[in-house]
Amino acid sequence: MDLSPDWVVGFTDGEGCFHVSFVKNPKTTLGYQVIPEFVIVQHKRDIQILYALKRFFKCGVVRKNHGDRWALRIRKISCLKEICEFFTKHPLKTKKNVDFIRFRRIIHKMEEGKHLTPEGLIEIIDIALQMNTEKRASLMEIKREIIERFPEMGRGPG
Amino acid sequence: MDLSPDWVVGFTDGEGCFHVSFVKNPKTTLGYQVIPEFVIVQHKRDIQILYALKRFFKCGVVRKNHGDRWALRIRKISCLKEICEFFTKHPLKTKKNVDFIRFRRIIHKMEEGKHLTPEGLIEIIDIALQMNTEKRASLMEIKREIIERFPEMGRGPG
Repeated sequence: MDLSPDWVVGFTDGEGCFHVSFVKNPKTTLGYQVIPEFVIVQHKRDIQILYALKRFFKCGVVRKNHGDRWALRIRKISCLKEICEFFTKHPLKTKKNVDFIRFRRIIHKMEEGKHLTPEGLIEIIDIALQMNTEKRASLMEIKREIIERFPEMGRGPG
Repeated sequence: MDLSPDWVVGFTDGEGCFHVSFVKNPKTTLGYQVIPEFVIVQHKRDIQILYALKRFFKCGVVRKNHGDRWALRIRKISCLKEICEFFTKHPLKTKKNVDFIRFRRIIHKMEEGKHLTPEGLIEIIDIALQMNTEKRASLMEIKREIIERFPEMGRGPG
């Protein structure tokens, strides 16, 4: 199945998701790992679409999500950089584009290694706070923890 | 906002719905009215996409659906005929295309006036039974009622 860029944009406007999570990981200096991902979930009847998108982007992993749902997940930063280039050249038409632009800012910061400094991580959390509103409380909690652990940043708590 | 055919196909693969309902209407000879529709529902933040699709198809009505959701509904048979021509020329890539092909068969039967004869209405219900599986019981009930009211069709009940 051949996909055109416009079809991919239309389908992503409907079904795509730009998501950033923050996972506790004591092995990292800051205690948290930033995991941005581009995800498309489909019922298993349309698994061939997920594989076609994987071929189109030359990136990602297709695996089971929940129940009858499968997902294409793209997490590698080098891949996400290409995803960002694609959706910059071929902009989304729904308000999802606003989330995409925030997501792209996070990817750029990660390419610069900003997620490895307390200041950069806080900046990334602040952008994510505008994206993943449903996780607001947990992101605020992580932000507070980072600020408390790195008071030399010269920022007040909260 | 200009939409390309491929974007419209991709977005419909994600968000579009081909739906056929059967509404009790004592004013019609058969007692039921067949209402096929092509629907796209969006959060109100993306209402401009619905208007762009309305302009693209030169058809349909945008109105409130539930809560924060709005819908573009296309119900006019002449419009649905054009929708069918569009998605025949630009096929959907997901399994939604299987539903579309069934929907198109119903539109063709309605253009021929088949929905106005008991035999034709039964044929349309039989196609819809393959589409709207969640309404199976109610469609089977309507089918039984038509067969009982028009025994001269020479078909056994149920």
